[in-house]
Amino acid sequence: MQVLPPGSTIGILGGGQLGRMLVLAAARLGFKCHVYSDVAGPACDVAATTTLAGFDDLAALERFAASVDVITYEFENVPLAAAAAVERMRPVRPGLKPLQVAQDRLTEKRLVSGLGIPVAPFAAVEGADDFDAAMRKTGLPAILKTRRLGYDGKGQVRIEAADALAAAFDSIGRAPATLEGVVSFSCEVSVLLVRSAAGETRFYTIPVNRHEGGILRSSTVPSALPEPHQARARDIAGALAAAFDYVGVLAVEMFYAGDGPEPLIVNEFAPRVHNSGHWTIDACAVSQFENHIRAIAGWPLGTSGRHSDAQMHNLIGSEVDGWVRLAAEPGAALHLYGKGEARPGRKMGHVTWTKTRKSAG
Amino acid sequence: MQVLPPGSTIGILGGGQLGRMLVLAAARLGFKCHVYSDVAGPACDVAATTTLAGFDDLAALERFAASVDVITYEFENVPLAAAAAVERMRPVRPGLKPLQVAQDRLTEKRLVSGLGIPVAPFAAVEGADDFDAAMRKTGLPAILKTRRLGYDGKGQVRIEAADALAAAFDSIGRAPATLEGVVSFSCEVSVLLVRSAAGETRFYTIPVNRHEGGILRSSTVPSALPEPHQARARDIAGALAAAFDYVGVLAVEMFYAGDGPEPLIVNEFAPRVHNSGHWTIDACAVSQFENHIRAIAGWPLGTSGRHSDAQMHNLIGSEVDGWVRLAAEPGAALHLYGKGEARPGRKMGHVTWTKTRKSAG
Repeated sequence: MQVLPPGSTIGILGGGQLGRMLVLAAARLGFKCHVYSDVAGPACDVAATTTLAGFDDLAALERFAASVDVITYEFENVPLAAAAAVERMRPVRPGLKPLQVAQDRLTEKRLVSGLGIPVAPFAAVEGADDFDAAMRKTGLPAILKTRRLGYDGKGQVRIEAADALAAAFDSIGRAPATLEGVVSFSCEVSVLLVRSAAGETRFYTIPVNRHEGGILRSSTVPSALPEPHQARARDIAGALAAAFDYVGVLAVEMFYAGDGPEPLIVNEFAPRVHNSGHWTIDACAVSQFENHIRAIAGWPLGTSGRHSDAQMHNLIGSEVDGWVRLAAEPGAALHLYGKGEARPGRKMGHVTWTKTRKSAG
Repeated sequence: MQVLPPGSTIGILGGGQLGRMLVLAAARLGFKCHVYSDVAGPACDVAATTTLAGFDDLAALERFAASVDVITYEFENVPLAAAAAVERMRPVRPGLKPLQVAQDRLTEKRLVSGLGIPVAPFAAVEGADDFDAAMRKTGLPAILKTRRLGYDGKGQVRIEAADALAAAFDSIGRAPATLEGVVSFSCEVSVLLVRSAAGETRFYTIPVNRHEGGILRSSTVPSALPEPHQARARDIAGALAAAFDYVGVLAVEMFYAGDGPEPLIVNEFAPRVHNSGHWTIDACAVSQFENHIRAIAGWPLGTSGRHSDAQMHNLIGSEVDGWVRLAAEPGAALHLYGKGEARPGRKMGHVTWTKTRKSAG
């Protein structure tokens, strides 16, 4: 794989806060970034170049691709056709396959379980004819989820009783869906890894994640998971990355059930840098963002070790109004995304509390 | 002082690597940056807006000032008239006075010594008539330095014998100069402080600096200076900052002579973020760049504590060609400025080796 020299241009599909943090990390290494987005977003303010155009604008996509040396994406709902169009001209990393799989919950579940990786019981729901068989397979309670375009808990309905499924299906617009059995777990964790084109894989410390209303609230490292279970989690995520011949940062979210035959069950994966890895900016020598850039640019991977323990807390909606107080708090690293309006449920920034590890060497 | 909310725009006079690192730090806090520079430089690639215009272009300066909320500068040779023009419209921090003083070695020496702070013996040299009196005051060897526009060792000639001074004065174009006595010292150090508009002052750990040919090679923290001497160094720098009613990061370079009546002698100060503080990016929760932005934006200052020991090494000229090797080195944080041509003597990037402090809590 070609090693991109400093001064090269990284193309980023998507203009959100993940793109912004990728741009900041790329700038540290001497790269320029060209952000392609259909709406002006946080990444545009720091990119050397921005293209504001629809993801169906083939001419704009081709001009974008021609102007960059490698392309990545910062959200998994980039239309596949757009990614395919630019891939005809420049390498897209981590590639189209993980994007395609991550865009469809059913394909995702089938691929992951096909690798022998434990997932919650699931079934396809295309229409009312599927209801009974699906519930037999998943049991109740279960969660009805649209196959496509769900994020931060959107497009999901929890089903407690069999007769609630029809109304739930109506409420998601009768879109193709999956029904997924509810798994009992003691906590949620995620594995963040970075993988080079040569297959070298490095893992960040596994955070424990807390969600509210389907939105990530906080991630904490280290977790209390026993080391054999952490090793198992890393093996699962590593196997998934290898199956994709993945290049870049991959995040795999898992339910942790503690002791039992299946301590870890994969919930979903994100083929990109991930909110549960934001703590790596302040607690690691090389953040998830820098390691993603290194991987897609063919550079040597950086360390994934951490120098500090950390807790990351998302600032959602009006929580961001507490920025002056947070800025004054010792040990708190404040990150704001420069978004204008603090709408409810909108991720406006995050804060990471770090504590230097006494035992680190 | 008004507290600038996230989303405000920071104006930066100058487009070099210090500006680039200021932009990256400001972006973390949700600020936009507008860079004003007479040549395209490393800061332009990451700024939300760039104005490329001369520092004598009053109309461009006024448009720039009108578009921002506060203004700072990233090099001390910004023409005073340009800074004064924008100051009529927006606050300039740390203000015009430190800029004016730092631009003229003679004014600088007089102001610093006028505060009772030890400096090397110095004298003004305007012409041949001054030679004898100047050498009597400084002794030999001494260094002839242009009063204006010197940096990285440029515009300086060392004088070993009295009859060499005339040729040296010719070699600097008979520009107004100072003659400065050579001070014997065991090492060079710098004090980096950040001061808020309210006068709160925080100090970073004092680095030991090594120069070669007048250019900074490396900065290392911590130094071996005994704590009373470190306290004395902080007092000196704090007094200088207070004299300017300074807002932002100030760097004061000093010679350290060890035990003796004058352990510390001020060499010069820079009214800005400083190369000898680059290690703060990787070894501190809040870097010199972020604390400068916090101070000029009226925010609470961040901690100046370090979580790691560190050594920063500048990558000068073709040294930057070692970037692949450095990128692979564990514990090395690589920073490249995105400059095109690696000319001799040009600062192309830096690398910081960090080591987590065993005793930190």
